[in-house]
Amino acid sequence: MVITIGREFGSGGRELGRKLAKTLGIEYYDREIITEIAKNTAFSEQYVKQVIENNPHDLFPISVAHTFSYIDTNTIFQKQKIFSEQERVIKKMAAASDCVIIGRCADYILKDFNPLRIFVYADMDSKVERCLKRNESAENLSRKKLVKKIKSIDKNRARYYNYYTGEKWGDPLNYDICVNTTSVSIDDIVKSLSKMVKG
Amino acid sequence: MVITIGREFGSGGRELGRKLAKTLGIEYYDREIITEIAKNTAFSEQYVKQVIENNPHDLFPISVAHTFSYIDTNTIFQKQKIFSEQERVIKKMAAASDCVIIGRCADYILKDFNPLRIFVYADMDSKVERCLKRNESAENLSRKKLVKKIKSIDKNRARYYNYYTGEKWGDPLNYDICVNTTSVSIDDIVKSLSKMVKG
Repeated sequence: MVITIGREFGSGGRELGRKLAKTLGIEYYDREIITEIAKNTAFSEQYVKQVIENNPHDLFPISVAHTFSYIDTNTIFQKQKIFSEQERVIKKMAAASDCVIIGRCADYILKDFNPLRIFVYADMDSKVERCLKRNESAENLSRKKLVKKIKSIDKNRARYYNYYTGEKWGDPLNYDICVNTTSVSIDDIVKSLSKMVKG
Repeated sequence: MVITIGREFGSGGRELGRKLAKTLGIEYYDREIITEIAKNTAFSEQYVKQVIENNPHDLFPISVAHTFSYIDTNTIFQKQKIFSEQERVIKKMAAASDCVIIGRCADYILKDFNPLRIFVYADMDSKVERCLKRNESAENLSRKKLVKKIKSIDKNRARYYNYYTGEKWGDPLNYDICVNTTSVSIDDIVKSLSKMVKG
């Protein structure tokens, strides 16, 4: 049983995934993927994280006159290398045991494993509330700036997903089930989903 | 327990709703709603069906010079009357017993009942396949014409929903859970959902 979880920032998707894995007694992979990629390449965790979590176009240096060619090719190469390694790591994890994998195009990468592909979303108000509760992501930002931050993170997730998969992030057709966390507790959703998944 | 089901044409949403109601042992309301509205108004079932299933703008007569005013007002009045009656009938059904209600803006109308709002969708190929299997909706149409028919029915559903609710039909935020029937059998989904719902 392989479950992939795509999620809007602030929707509680990561918490949902962690708790679902715990309830089902299966592995949970999230940031572990970055650590594993860094271990297997020459790149630092920091750099891998930057490549995976940022707009894929951000890493392209701005071209100045005729001087961009070498750096550009090199950057593309590094990104491709990281994506290939991500693909290898995620496939290895899924092959090793039942697991929940958060984000990182796992739904696309694991197509042949026929995973249960879940997408977690919520309305903006409840995402802001959730961020405010877990202080770390709110960073004392004003409500307005928090909305901007949430939108910007999701925009990068979408760009990354669309860039590597050629599909549209968040498009319901790319998932088997989409779950709205706006007015239900994550614990209740996990209870329902785990019953559903156990079959 | 009140469950509302919005669905794309050909996605198997109606079958899913009927089987889910049967599995849960609760009432199932679909075309019964139209019969009930007709019973309580001066309109025929045929007319009620036309109002509910067609583009709400279709019923507006084309205005010719200065002659449109009376007919126009009358048509709007009839449509409002049917929608009010639909609202009354659906609320009465939900208040009477646990049930599954298909379409008809029930998710919006029953807001105060806090229903489980399900949206059922699928990719175009599988919707065409489903229509071809249940001959009645395919009507010996070519594949191309069937796609056109599916799109047109959903366009009308969207227009009707958007017109009366001010919300966007099919927008995941209007539902608690969205289910993709592309590559799973309806029976399997019903099994999972009923386990999930029983809690």
